[in-house]
Amino acid sequence: MGTVTVPAFLPSPEDDGQKLRKAFQGRGTDEKAIIDVLGHRTAAQRSAIAAAYASLYGESLLHRLHSELSGDFRNAVMLWTMDPAERDAKLVNKALKRKGERHLWVIIEVACASSPDHLIAVRQAYCSLFSSSIEEDVAHKITPTEPLGQLFVRLLTSYRYPGEHVAVELAKHEAAQLFDAVQKKQLHRDEVIRVLSTRNKSQLKETFEQYNEGYGRHIEEDIEGAGRSQFASMLKTAIWCIASPEKHFAEVVRSSVVGLGTDEDSLTRAVVSRAEIDMKKVKEEYKKRYNTTLIYDVVDDTSGDYMRFLLTLIGPADP
Amino acid sequence: MGTVTVPAFLPSPEDDGQKLRKAFQGRGTDEKAIIDVLGHRTAAQRSAIAAAYASLYGESLLHRLHSELSGDFRNAVMLWTMDPAERDAKLVNKALKRKGERHLWVIIEVACASSPDHLIAVRQAYCSLFSSSIEEDVAHKITPTEPLGQLFVRLLTSYRYPGEHVAVELAKHEAAQLFDAVQKKQLHRDEVIRVLSTRNKSQLKETFEQYNEGYGRHIEEDIEGAGRSQFASMLKTAIWCIASPEKHFAEVVRSSVVGLGTDEDSLTRAVVSRAEIDMKKVKEEYKKRYNTTLIYDVVDDTSGDYMRFLLTLIGPADP
Repeated sequence: MGTVTVPAFLPSPEDDGQKLRKAFQGRGTDEKAIIDVLGHRTAAQRSAIAAAYASLYGESLLHRLHSELSGDFRNAVMLWTMDPAERDAKLVNKALKRKGERHLWVIIEVACASSPDHLIAVRQAYCSLFSSSIEEDVAHKITPTEPLGQLFVRLLTSYRYPGEHVAVELAKHEAAQLFDAVQKKQLHRDEVIRVLSTRNKSQLKETFEQYNEGYGRHIEEDIEGAGRSQFASMLKTAIWCIASPEKHFAEVVRSSVVGLGTDEDSLTRAVVSRAEIDMKKVKEEYKKRYNTTLIYDVVDDTSGDYMRFLLTLIGPADP
Repeated sequence: MGTVTVPAFLPSPEDDGQKLRKAFQGRGTDEKAIIDVLGHRTAAQRSAIAAAYASLYGESLLHRLHSELSGDFRNAVMLWTMDPAERDAKLVNKALKRKGERHLWVIIEVACASSPDHLIAVRQAYCSLFSSSIEEDVAHKITPTEPLGQLFVRLLTSYRYPGEHVAVELAKHEAAQLFDAVQKKQLHRDEVIRVLSTRNKSQLKETFEQYNEGYGRHIEEDIEGAGRSQFASMLKTAIWCIASPEKHFAEVVRSSVVGLGTDEDSLTRAVVSRAEIDMKKVKEEYKKRYNTTLIYDVVDDTSGDYMRFLLTLIGPADP
């Protein structure tokens, strides 16, 4: 469940557009008003506001936000306001230009923690924005002959059956195939990639469950035990993003705040992309795993409008 | 260019629906009226007629066609009347259940001779119709560890940049990569699959052109020379479907009529799927290559309403 709250008496998109316009005008920008409006609207409502704003004032809401705001607050508000498919296309494109494992997470997140139709929309948006296909750019960055490139391309290009059909015998069979590959430390086997990239998510959850029941262990733990390679780490991330994305996003937030300094890009990404989907579960998972709350860590590591905006999206502490 | 002709004074979908209803009623079915209506309407118009028919008479036009018609004529009219994405999803599903190289052609056709958006629509339709993803079923039929499976899955899951952006230096570079793979008879190389499955079609045409200019030969001839494997044959088919689909479909029609008996399924598929796209070019190519006309061969090999329907879609002989 998401954590975004929408007022009971929802203003029209035109009214919201006017409020934003007022917030931009005069001396200084009224950041609070911006948070009040945009932080409490769903994706469809934000899109209607952007359309109303453009037709009322003949300028793009995103451009105006860009010129009015700055820093991490601007980045967060803009990612939140743009179309979610465009947002993810931009995040993947940016991730492909940077180094480090944490950036590669973005690719797995978009590929595995999205609905099949959202993933297709991301690929279409990617082509429009960058005049190349997402798989073309991924294959350019990560040699597709290597297992990691294979994994990325196959996951990103998947269009899984979106229904919840589960075949238990198949799940047992494929759990055994996965177990065999993991036991023999042959994580690269095509079976592993095939199963993870083609089966529907309900089927995969059943497969992981069968693995757990049949062999007494969680598959992601076995994978971590099988080798500390980047491939193993990405495989684990994929499994989490497919079966329990809240675990992955709790980890994204946690690793963005621990240590010296904050990785604001990752923190923003996690909050903005999950606030409407499963932020409630992310918060629960966070509490369980790290013995502190997500809200506490955000307050501890951020400040000002950026902090206020994130907290708006994250919602109140659970009772 | 397509060969489907639409009357200058187009009846409303309701009028067309009524005409079809009349054709179904009374003693015997009026096949000529069915051909007159459906054979002269675009995909969007056929879809509007089906919707109007359903709302006027409370029954599905496709179901009624199924019960009124029979044989190859029925098959052709139904494939023509259904939504093109559903049609291709059904054709792929059927192809996966049959044996023989000609059936595998269907997979390459749908993957390579469709627009990127149509291919996505086919994958979505496939999931709705068969409760599994297209890549799941392909991977089940053709071991994806084998190069052929890799090729099929990567082509089917592609979403190419739909624009016409061409980078000439890149085309030269990739033409050289392809040439090297072909020369060393290493058609399975991942580079080959990567280039064919990720680059946009204009870029690929430029790459094949650079191959031709740089090495004095057509890449598809070199591939055929490199080995008479099924993989080589599918690679050639993919290249044709990407760069000059008329060549492939001329061959589909030709091989469906030569020899004893006719392969009606292939003939119908080629005509129904290209009539609105490039049937004019297919006819030209046919004439050039086989020294006879496509119309002559269709008349020679088919008869009755089936023949009349195909000829309606194929259009008149060029002057």
